[in-house]
Amino acid sequence: MRRVRFRDPAGMVRTGEWHGDSVSFADATYDLDEVDVLAPSEPSKIICIGINYADHAEETGIAVPDRPMLFLKTPNTVAAHGDTITLPEGKEQVDWEAELGVVIGEQCRNVDAEDAESVIDGYTVVCDISNRDDQREEQNWVRGKAFDGAAPIGPVVADPEHLSDDAAVSLRVNGETKQSSDISQLIFSVPELIEEISSYMTLEPGDVISTGTPSGVGGLEDGDEVEVEVEGVETLQFTARRD
Amino acid sequence: MRRVRFRDPAGMVRTGEWHGDSVSFADATYDLDEVDVLAPSEPSKIICIGINYADHAEETGIAVPDRPMLFLKTPNTVAAHGDTITLPEGKEQVDWEAELGVVIGEQCRNVDAEDAESVIDGYTVVCDISNRDDQREEQNWVRGKAFDGAAPIGPVVADPEHLSDDAAVSLRVNGETKQSSDISQLIFSVPELIEEISSYMTLEPGDVISTGTPSGVGGLEDGDEVEVEVEGVETLQFTARRD
Repeated sequence: MRRVRFRDPAGMVRTGEWHGDSVSFADATYDLDEVDVLAPSEPSKIICIGINYADHAEETGIAVPDRPMLFLKTPNTVAAHGDTITLPEGKEQVDWEAELGVVIGEQCRNVDAEDAESVIDGYTVVCDISNRDDQREEQNWVRGKAFDGAAPIGPVVADPEHLSDDAAVSLRVNGETKQSSDISQLIFSVPELIEEISSYMTLEPGDVISTGTPSGVGGLEDGDEVEVEVEGVETLQFTARRD
Repeated sequence: MRRVRFRDPAGMVRTGEWHGDSVSFADATYDLDEVDVLAPSEPSKIICIGINYADHAEETGIAVPDRPMLFLKTPNTVAAHGDTITLPEGKEQVDWEAELGVVIGEQCRNVDAEDAESVIDGYTVVCDISNRDDQREEQNWVRGKAFDGAAPIGPVVADPEHLSDDAAVSLRVNGETKQSSDISQLIFSVPELIEEISSYMTLEPGDVISTGTPSGVGGLEDGDEVEVEVEGVETLQFTARRD
């Protein structure tokens, strides 16, 4: 099952089932254009991983780390499927990054990798939008990674059985493929990430771990239509807008 | 007025008035040992400032930045007045940092410095606990700054009129003064910080901006009793515990 949060025509927020071109809750089914798709969870924090695909490490010229490189996105960064994201004003380079997102299902701490499946609610799609102008100047990537709208997420939380070990991760801009890889190339696996992160911090239901991006990162322009797909999960769509 | 969130003897969470050795809500007054003092707000994010006192910049050997150095603490870091904080296991150097905290009163974005007072709910006290073992190894200070309990906050939100322009910021460990400065030494003022941060991200009610620490930073040991005082606000107390 693929779950979707949406606002129904009466304005009620529902967590229902995703059917691709429609959504349902209880006995009611709605076409996608009748509802507002919301971000699939309300994370208290998004923990992101840098340099977690060997091909992206090569692209950026950064050595493969000996433990996961972590950074944070705050709740204000969350945007939803179908949203138009206003990119930070006056910045030259604002990049897309296609990522597999892990949605946490229960409050947990100090989770061993071998038990990590039990705390996963499911999988989603994240675009880690990155303002390089500021990121390059910062010790901590706050202006670079935590601006409003920097994390389109969704449209669904797919049950874990939908994700294969080599699920493709791809990104298209205006229909043209820019990123194409698969999760077998992850340097640190999802269970390893959960073990490492939860050894420092409590994870809460709805929190998202964004697992890093493959090669093919590039810059967004005004009006770009972006599709980010994780095979077996869904395709997240958003539009980029520059003021 | 100094507001305090607490759990009353019946288990109800109240936002009442702080009287130093007692708290009150509606017609009821309780001694401090009858209630659980909670963190004074539930921040969706804590935005922290590095190197914002000239004397601390000198101590660390880092040049004074030309714009605020930002980093993040997540909601899992929040601890309350009176709590015992378990420091991250196996780390040699875990430091205290006494800070003035600004509690945001309303959702806001793109606030000019001259209008910043209107979005401030009041002031609190923060201890930015810092795990240097990991911080030194990280691009982004996640393990270093965002572990559970890394942000004791409180005990109150003091109305802005309680804070003078040269309010003393001090920290004592087991009764011995370790930090002693005042906020006239801030490199970036509170209004300047609000303008800069809100130009990138929406601030929410209860969000906290922690304004940086003066000189005198040092390492916590098992059983340390820590008091952090901002003159006119209150004294935050917590105990450090090593596993």
